[in-house]
Amino acid sequence: MKQAEIKLAETTINSKKVYSGSLIHAFKDKVRLPDGRQSVREWIDHPGASAVLPVFGNGEVQLIRQFRYPLKQTFLEVPAGKIDEGEEPLVTAKRELEEESGIRAKSWAPLGKFHPCIGYTNEVIYLYVAWDLEVAESKTDQDEFVAQVKMPFANAVEKVLRGSISDGKTITTIFRAANWWKKNKPFPVSNL
Amino acid sequence: MKQAEIKLAETTINSKKVYSGSLIHAFKDKVRLPDGRQSVREWIDHPGASAVLPVFGNGEVQLIRQFRYPLKQTFLEVPAGKIDEGEEPLVTAKRELEEESGIRAKSWAPLGKFHPCIGYTNEVIYLYVAWDLEVAESKTDQDEFVAQVKMPFANAVEKVLRGSISDGKTITTIFRAANWWKKNKPFPVSNL
Repeated sequence: MKQAEIKLAETTINSKKVYSGSLIHAFKDKVRLPDGRQSVREWIDHPGASAVLPVFGNGEVQLIRQFRYPLKQTFLEVPAGKIDEGEEPLVTAKRELEEESGIRAKSWAPLGKFHPCIGYTNEVIYLYVAWDLEVAESKTDQDEFVAQVKMPFANAVEKVLRGSISDGKTITTIFRAANWWKKNKPFPVSNL
Repeated sequence: MKQAEIKLAETTINSKKVYSGSLIHAFKDKVRLPDGRQSVREWIDHPGASAVLPVFGNGEVQLIRQFRYPLKQTFLEVPAGKIDEGEEPLVTAKRELEEESGIRAKSWAPLGKFHPCIGYTNEVIYLYVAWDLEVAESKTDQDEFVAQVKMPFANAVEKVLRGSISDGKTITTIFRAANWWKKNKPFPVSNL
């Protein structure tokens, strides 16, 4: 694999910030290709994010429904959000779970990370499953509108398989969480 | 759900193109929130893409390894690429499979679509599984460098579960393809 890394790698000749917004920071870099020629790569800088599937004692999971402006439709999602500067990904997951769904969890397991969009962003999303839940009150950001949706864990898996859950981070979180749960079984969940 | 759509929906007040590159087209929109207040949404316009898992008669699948500049590392991926204007997603999948891996497939099944990055892009990726493969020669774009990686289908699933395959579109394609294959079994694949 070392050999493959060397032969495929592109190196930066120079990097220029071409757009700096409140969310999106875009760069246009001149790069050296593996064969020595030059090319241009455009990419979005992202601070990373954390996402979590919260599982209740009765085997239900907490999802949320949000309107996503780029696609002009609502999506079923796991609670998730951007990592603040210097924040540990687990701290982000705990903060977002409480902000978006008003839930505090006593038990957490990491499900690794994944890369949602490798072609043009450097975003990494850290995934978790959480249980031993305590419900307080949600306190979403001023311009976030979120509907709470509970369903049996097995139904969420079924929705991922059927495609009615189509958000990448939610697919990957539920898929990994179901696999983790079957192996580790903190408590039994029906039909999983 | 209709009710939820209405209460969560944001409407465009105006839209401004803030960056127009060769790959990335960024917009900054002023929007009306569900409660009547205004906010700003930044988003990337994307033409959509297609991805395919090709399965050989011996139960191996064809993946590729590519260097992804935004993350400065190589990834194991399914063959995939952007939809040309007016192109049918299946035509894109066939074109990219031949360009990236030099493979033509006689049999195709759709695995639905998914949304890799709903927070800030409108990208949709159409997923396929393909078999009855014929290997010709790959003809990648001038600035694309691609290594061919074959492995048993079951190993690819294992890599998704373990997290060593971490690209979102590849995770979702392999996950859905494995589920589709178990149900439809065009031919037996060991350990799946």
